Amino acid sequence: MKNAIVLLSGGLDSTTTLAIAKEAGFQIYAMSFDYGQRHYIELESAKKTATEFNVIYHKIISIDLTIFGYSALTDDIDVPKRKSVKEIQNDIPITYVPARNTIFLSYAVACAEVNQAHDIFIGVNAVDYSGYPDCRTEYIKAYQKMANLATKTSVEGQQLTIHTPLINLSKSDIITKGINLGVDYGLTHSCYHPLINNSPCRQCDSCLLRAKGFLDAGVCDPLIK
Amino acid sequence: MKNAIVLLSGGLDSTTTLAIAKEAGFQIYAMSFDYGQRHYIELESAKKTATEFNVIYHKIISIDLTIFGYSALTDDIDVPKRKSVKEIQNDIPITYVPARNTIFLSYAVACAEVNQAHDIFIGVNAVDYSGYPDCRTEYIKAYQKMANLATKTSVEGQQLTIHTPLINLSKSDIITKGINLGVDYGLTHSCYHPLINNSPCRQCDSCLLRAKGFLDAGVCDPLIK
Repeated sequence: MKNAIVLLSGGLDSTTTLAIAKEAGFQIYAMSFDYGQRHYIELESAKKTATEFNVIYHKIISIDLTIFGYSALTDDIDVPKRKSVKEIQNDIPITYVPARNTIFLSYAVACAEVNQAHDIFIGVNAVDYSGYPDCRTEYIKAYQKMANLATKTSVEGQQLTIHTPLINLSKSDIITKGINLGVDYGLTHSCYHPLINNSPCRQCDSCLLRAKGFLDAGVCDPLIK
Repeated sequence: MKNAIVLLSGGLDSTTTLAIAKEAGFQIYAMSFDYGQRHYIELESAKKTATEFNVIYHKIISIDLTIFGYSALTDDIDVPKRKSVKEIQNDIPITYVPARNTIFLSYAVACAEVNQAHDIFIGVNAVDYSGYPDCRTEYIKAYQKMANLATKTSVEGQQLTIHTPLINLSKSDIITKGINLGVDYGLTHSCYHPLINNSPCRQCDSCLLRAKGFLDAGVCDPLIK
């Protein structure tokens, strides 16, 4: 069996990505990041999913991105609340965290090298939420090219592939795919600003996009009682 | 004045790079990493240099690369000792740390974005020590291209430049340049495996290349009493 690194936030997209990598026959090395995110409760979801999918390794790496601030997820900036998904703007949202995927992928490259993995999976998605620059195909392609010049393994001729199985899927397609692969979305967490009891706020962009995804897929979100 | 991020290990190369960036008129945001390196004493040198060059910000970021191991700098692997610089092989040495520059640069990209810096300086050098894959021109070019797709700033049209002023210089050229810019090499630290009193071992690759550099430059190393 080949090894793959999966970046697992604990959210809907990365959990589906994990299921896809597992279905493709990889042994999974899952990596999550405790980076100072407002919704660190997502890491509990990541742990549950990692166990559920019987990964051979789940590392939660502590890094402090609050030192840079700048984002509503890592700084004292309000997470925008909206009445509906239609209010979400097309520009880069305030929940953008500078260089987040670039930092996460750099750890994944290191992890891949030491565990003889030549495949990295990341659940970026450019359709429903095109605001984040580090979720685009051209960015991922450029990252892969750089990674294939960065390591001892690459010098030895072994190529690294960054898989983005969700990049062109709608949220409802992602949910449908995940359900077919046995994902329990009741274990996932999407909300950027959870309530005191950790239930979703249902007003942040992430909650609204998730709700629209379930609606379009014609299934109920197990998190919404 | 324009802002620049300088990756400052506390060694000879990065200290010279800092002097070059300062001479070029930049306001300096210096970043160092406490990554579990055997020679963490280099961070004391980084602090002294940052003070000496009057940087406006020096952040020492704690990240744990010992979780990956694999290197004589971050794992329980002996640092090779040699009798002379001629014994240094051309292949990638065991002191290679997986994805180290990729990880360091990813933090630099975040730091650049939040501090309105469009320039990053890194003291990589491909001449005297060509063993590290992440010290080559083609790697840096690919990194810059990726970084210019990764951020909100890049989407807004502002390009990031990664400067490698030492990449084609010999160690003696670097030392000569540094001395002309007022660098006090007595504040720097190069040894991978310092003795108990933190003085250089004079047998590791880094010590031997430093010694050859000073010899070729025709000046005494202030660290060698």
